[in-house]
Amino acid sequence: MALDLAPVLSRVEGDFDGAVSRLCDFLRIPSVGTDPAYDAETKRCAEWLAAQLRDIGMEASVRPTPGQPVVVAHDTSAPEGAPHLLYYGHYDVQPADPLELWETPPFEPSLVEGPRGTRVVARGAVDDKGQVMTIVEALRAWKAEHGRLPCRVTVFVEGEEESSSRNLVPFLEANRDELKADVCVISDTNMLGVDEPAITYMLRGMVYNEVTLHGPAVDLHSGMYGGAVPNPINELCRILGQLHDGQGRVQVPGFYDDVQEIAEEEARAWQQIAFDEKAFLASVGLDRSVGEEGRTVLERVWSRPTCDVNGIWGGYQGEGSKTVIAAKASAKLSCRLVPNQDPQKIRAGLRRFFEERTPPGCRIEVTEMGAGAAIRVPTDSPWLAGARRGIEDAFGKPPAMIGCGGSIPVAAAMQRVLGLDTLLVGFGLDDDRVHSPNEKFELACYRKGIRTHAAMLLRMAEAQR
Amino acid sequence: MALDLAPVLSRVEGDFDGAVSRLCDFLRIPSVGTDPAYDAETKRCAEWLAAQLRDIGMEASVRPTPGQPVVVAHDTSAPEGAPHLLYYGHYDVQPADPLELWETPPFEPSLVEGPRGTRVVARGAVDDKGQVMTIVEALRAWKAEHGRLPCRVTVFVEGEEESSSRNLVPFLEANRDELKADVCVISDTNMLGVDEPAITYMLRGMVYNEVTLHGPAVDLHSGMYGGAVPNPINELCRILGQLHDGQGRVQVPGFYDDVQEIAEEEARAWQQIAFDEKAFLASVGLDRSVGEEGRTVLERVWSRPTCDVNGIWGGYQGEGSKTVIAAKASAKLSCRLVPNQDPQKIRAGLRRFFEERTPPGCRIEVTEMGAGAAIRVPTDSPWLAGARRGIEDAFGKPPAMIGCGGSIPVAAAMQRVLGLDTLLVGFGLDDDRVHSPNEKFELACYRKGIRTHAAMLLRMAEAQR
Repeated sequence: MALDLAPVLSRVEGDFDGAVSRLCDFLRIPSVGTDPAYDAETKRCAEWLAAQLRDIGMEASVRPTPGQPVVVAHDTSAPEGAPHLLYYGHYDVQPADPLELWETPPFEPSLVEGPRGTRVVARGAVDDKGQVMTIVEALRAWKAEHGRLPCRVTVFVEGEEESSSRNLVPFLEANRDELKADVCVISDTNMLGVDEPAITYMLRGMVYNEVTLHGPAVDLHSGMYGGAVPNPINELCRILGQLHDGQGRVQVPGFYDDVQEIAEEEARAWQQIAFDEKAFLASVGLDRSVGEEGRTVLERVWSRPTCDVNGIWGGYQGEGSKTVIAAKASAKLSCRLVPNQDPQKIRAGLRRFFEERTPPGCRIEVTEMGAGAAIRVPTDSPWLAGARRGIEDAFGKPPAMIGCGGSIPVAAAMQRVLGLDTLLVGFGLDDDRVHSPNEKFELACYRKGIRTHAAMLLRMAEAQR
Repeated sequence: MALDLAPVLSRVEGDFDGAVSRLCDFLRIPSVGTDPAYDAETKRCAEWLAAQLRDIGMEASVRPTPGQPVVVAHDTSAPEGAPHLLYYGHYDVQPADPLELWETPPFEPSLVEGPRGTRVVARGAVDDKGQVMTIVEALRAWKAEHGRLPCRVTVFVEGEEESSSRNLVPFLEANRDELKADVCVISDTNMLGVDEPAITYMLRGMVYNEVTLHGPAVDLHSGMYGGAVPNPINELCRILGQLHDGQGRVQVPGFYDDVQEIAEEEARAWQQIAFDEKAFLASVGLDRSVGEEGRTVLERVWSRPTCDVNGIWGGYQGEGSKTVIAAKASAKLSCRLVPNQDPQKIRAGLRRFFEERTPPGCRIEVTEMGAGAAIRVPTDSPWLAGARRGIEDAFGKPPAMIGCGGSIPVAAAMQRVLGLDTLLVGFGLDDDRVHSPNEKFELACYRKGIRTHAAMLLRMAEAQR
């Protein structure tokens, strides 16, 4: 018996208020996986999600790891021979600081009116809980309407994506058989606009480090010692200030050796994309793009590698003045990588960069905190056609094929460990303020995301036939 | 009737335990004048000191200012025609952070054994409470022994020296007549060793700024925006990293224009000074001096100007990783000045330095937090002879004439407003850890300091006759 999409989509419409309510419940749990202070809440969040999946008739469990637990759920109700989709998401969220800049509390989801209708504002609204719920609610609608899914489905939701997914690969390796599937689907990327759907086929990779430059053994009085001793803050600034030349090119040794230039037709396709550069920059208070010379904004964000200092601290930061020469200064920094940069070579380049510049009297300490290669998803994959049709069902138009400046290291892991390609079909918007205060998810995007996943489930099954 | 020094010195010896006990009482009051959270304690400290001065028979009062109060005490018991000495000190102390590095609590003075005998360990032990008490206890011994002092004396102790003495000059100007004197005496500098007394005749000046570089309007996701936007932390590092060239010379425009080279005979005299360069550096974990090329350590610290970043912060500083591009980055920095640099010209040079380097898309915000010129005290002053003799009485040898890398802006204020030269006779040691955790004052230095001031009171009176 053919499974009909139309009543599923009607059910999605009819139960949308419930879907919003359940998303808010999800958002209320402060699952800051990167911070041990929130461990109990993070675990509670995993339990909540597993219970939701059980409620819709899937076999779900919360599985321990050395770090945050993983939620794994299976559904085998699909007809014989149906394809097997592995959905990946993460239930952990970024820290909410700086708290004083939130207009509503980060873990009390608020429905706020905006230029595109109502949005839900909370930490994790779009990254990644709102997007995870587009999948869960689509599965719910299919199961409620037809009692079964068109595809075999595994849902895999981890709790450490924001802290480098350090236990992901060991878990995938240990559970390879259980996690067999035909393709991976991830909703953690953006559309070009609320009516401009997209499939992301390029993701940047990442290398994340923390460095500390040590100088004198103790903090010093800057009168008594100033001028005669190395100042670790001055020196660390000098070193970090040399990360880029005057044309915005990163000076880490070997940085660009393996960088693959995009093809001409790709560059031409990108110029056709409905990307509003001015609005992209204006929405964050900038009137111009600043970066690597000779590159468009999309190239700077999608196909060129970067090196950003994410945090810096040292010496006296309090009220008033203190005339100190700090014993040490520290920074967190990360590089976004593109195909085919090798994260290990970049790590080695960074180490060399710092060691070559460590001045006399100082000692550099480098802590490596995570690394993952960039991804290109093959656009001739048989599953892509189903994804494209599902988007056309939900949006009435085909998706743009876009890159993404962010990193989803799990896509590389899925390929390497489980042999899966990944369809990156996401519903976020560029102004959602991910990793910033007042993160949001448009309810219009949430609704369309649920519809898209509902449609994709059918179209992926059809695509295989 | 001539006033005899010997019994005064005996009394100092006999009451030394009491002097130590009173110093500890002084140290127990956490008078962190720079931090509003300690305002009540800072005021209580002023009251304590005024009470001590009243106890020894001086007319003392705590005088309000827009900020921390000033303690002023007078004694006119001296014979007709005796010189009038104005002692200056400060009862406020530096913040104690980082607290975790103190071996004993910063405001619970501890008597600890060390290589030179017992030292008292507490914030303010030497900067400046221990040194203030060398004066108070000398006055106490004279009054207790003879009922009068050999000189007319004013004691002036403020509560804002560690926060740029912003209410000092207005107070001096408003009370010019009351504060008339012949010479100012300050004990806030160092000796060369526990048996190596010194008079400081050069002090560096200071300019202190805070800068903030603003970029995007909000914190940004470093994947979504990285490569296409200015990163204020990277940019601030680049700017601060340009403060010095490869030879350690400060690149602020006009920085060295008015710098006076020391005279040849001065340079020769400095080479004779018993300064142990290796020990000076080794005591803070360094095996070599790093600074302006072609200059000795004493030149680098006494006669050459500097620019040190005292604190820096921006972005994510917590546990784990956060892939953010911060909206802004900040730093506190200060320049030590030498004769005849003009603090206002240096401030203007710093503004220009930052404005010239502010990149597109960013905005620099400069907050000026204090400025004072360097000082040279005339070595042919009639009062110096009395000071030298007093030191010889107490130490059995004449003092070395030394510079000081630190700043005591009040010395410039005393000259400018009250027309007074300043005798800088101090009893600290280089390893006292001023402005650092575990600040200390050797009891041997304390004792000799009291004896020195006791002797100086007589010798200054004699010097005038």
